[in-house]
Amino acid sequence: MNTEQPPKILLAHGGGGRLTDQLIRQHILPKIKNDTIAELADAAKLNLSSPQVCFSTDSYVVKPLFFNGGDIGKLAVCGTINDLAVSGAKPVALSLSLIIEEGLEISLLDKILSSAAAAARENNVLIVAGDTKVVELGAADKLFINTAGIGVRLTGVDLGLDKLAVGDKVLLSGTIGDHGMTIISQRQDIKFQTEIQSDCAALAELTCSILENTNGVKFMRDPTRGGLAATLNEIVAGSNKAIEISEVDIPVNLPVLAAAEMLGFDVLNIANEGKFVAIVSPDSAEQALGICKEHPLGRDAAIIGRVIEATQAPLVELITKIGGRRIVQMPYGRELPRIC
Amino acid sequence: MNTEQPPKILLAHGGGGRLTDQLIRQHILPKIKNDTIAELADAAKLNLSSPQVCFSTDSYVVKPLFFNGGDIGKLAVCGTINDLAVSGAKPVALSLSLIIEEGLEISLLDKILSSAAAAARENNVLIVAGDTKVVELGAADKLFINTAGIGVRLTGVDLGLDKLAVGDKVLLSGTIGDHGMTIISQRQDIKFQTEIQSDCAALAELTCSILENTNGVKFMRDPTRGGLAATLNEIVAGSNKAIEISEVDIPVNLPVLAAAEMLGFDVLNIANEGKFVAIVSPDSAEQALGICKEHPLGRDAAIIGRVIEATQAPLVELITKIGGRRIVQMPYGRELPRIC
Repeated sequence: MNTEQPPKILLAHGGGGRLTDQLIRQHILPKIKNDTIAELADAAKLNLSSPQVCFSTDSYVVKPLFFNGGDIGKLAVCGTINDLAVSGAKPVALSLSLIIEEGLEISLLDKILSSAAAAARENNVLIVAGDTKVVELGAADKLFINTAGIGVRLTGVDLGLDKLAVGDKVLLSGTIGDHGMTIISQRQDIKFQTEIQSDCAALAELTCSILENTNGVKFMRDPTRGGLAATLNEIVAGSNKAIEISEVDIPVNLPVLAAAEMLGFDVLNIANEGKFVAIVSPDSAEQALGICKEHPLGRDAAIIGRVIEATQAPLVELITKIGGRRIVQMPYGRELPRIC
Repeated sequence: MNTEQPPKILLAHGGGGRLTDQLIRQHILPKIKNDTIAELADAAKLNLSSPQVCFSTDSYVVKPLFFNGGDIGKLAVCGTINDLAVSGAKPVALSLSLIIEEGLEISLLDKILSSAAAAARENNVLIVAGDTKVVELGAADKLFINTAGIGVRLTGVDLGLDKLAVGDKVLLSGTIGDHGMTIISQRQDIKFQTEIQSDCAALAELTCSILENTNGVKFMRDPTRGGLAATLNEIVAGSNKAIEISEVDIPVNLPVLAAAEMLGFDVLNIANEGKFVAIVSPDSAEQALGICKEHPLGRDAAIIGRVIEATQAPLVELITKIGGRRIVQMPYGRELPRIC
């Protein structure tokens, strides 16, 4: 037992000296271990299988740090894997950078790092680079994590909004709103009869399987902040097409829908952390759907709409359950601070 | 003029909706612009010149945000460029991820982003990926920035601590302590007769020039947090050799030395943000030194010591100005929170 190691993070843990080294060697490396990061070099040396790569980053500030279905560590790993996955890449390597508030219990950090490491391991992604900063009490809220990631682009896959055509199908990989409503409910300490749970998961295995086995996928995106509404609005704005979706076809877990309605949220605007939207040519849509349904992360997948001509402006239209039509707007942004 | 855009950052700027989009399109993209980031995809697509890459990340929490010689934006770009540079790579692409405290003046953010963009442009590095999160007032201290970076490894360059041999020279690219003492002085509002200034700068042009024109460089590292003392201690610990340095040969700006002594700091422990240490074989040392001295960022370079046998333990020994000897210890870590 190392009697020098305090149970809480001290400012000195971020100073770049002996305590930083201890924190890295005793708490970070043992969980993450791989040959590349073990060198503790200024940068990780990677021999990628191809120079055609994708590169992405996200910072995670979710509150609370632990939520039903995950924690900030799992979220930070899965989120960046997903950004690479929906870009048509196979994720290979991640960086993990911590901004820690002085006083954070080291046992909490251990749990979060174990969870991040497990998510990376399960997805065959190596955490190869990292950084640890500590700020004084009150200068951050417990812990923020940044991950950046490199993926190797799948051969022959070239996704882009310019490829969209009228008649393409909108495929959604599963239920919406689970992550966001879980966070909101926990933050407001609301209990439901049926527990709701974040969908936090890494989608690369599923997206790679679809992209390797079908030809018709034109674009993919994960509907995180701003939810399905934001993602579809980004798609129409970037393609200058319109999209029509059908409310009855959108999978939503009933307790999530109930929670959203009770709290006055539109579930279309609520963040997801383990779902993707794919725009697929009509002749490949059923095949892509079939691949989804065979995978645990896509068993509730559905074709929820189609690409149509933008007659006036590139809009997203919802055919409601009772057959009416309404425009799905880009959310303004105030819904959900610190959802991810 | 856009009357919708408030002069301060709102929580909604981080919500992933219209305000996030506005912030990105009006304040971030115009400064950074390049073809890759303009796509606003989930991940940037890069065609690297080689699959042999380096990958690095750092989060920046420096306080104050603006300091003599730079700001957090320039620091975040230069810092990650330097980590790639000292690893023997030519930096190619960066990500830039912001964690903003609600209420930050957008004009400050503009200045910082302009500064980050200028540093990237001057060093031929593209900022290709980004992320923006906003946390509520009090949950962060104004602004934290993470950068991650990809560099292509220089052909034939393979740096590593295992290559060190007795007799190798320790080359330091310039004066030490400038960054750290500037930050400390500004934080404590201490004025000196001669103004001191951070050395914040990107070293890749100089490191690439040395690595491409000499053969004897075995290892490089930038002495940031923990200063020269931490870097040399890491080098001896990783190589199982000892290092002997000579105090009279270590370049220090006099006002920096005076400030450090007045405030009770050992300048060896103070952070630098535009310097590197290189371990070079004896037959290449003068050539490497010459290349440094011809470059604006290396004109004060000096050979400050040599690698010796570790007789008992891998220690760093300083020959003092009066000819005495003392062991340079790894700093404990408490010296300087939020120095970078």
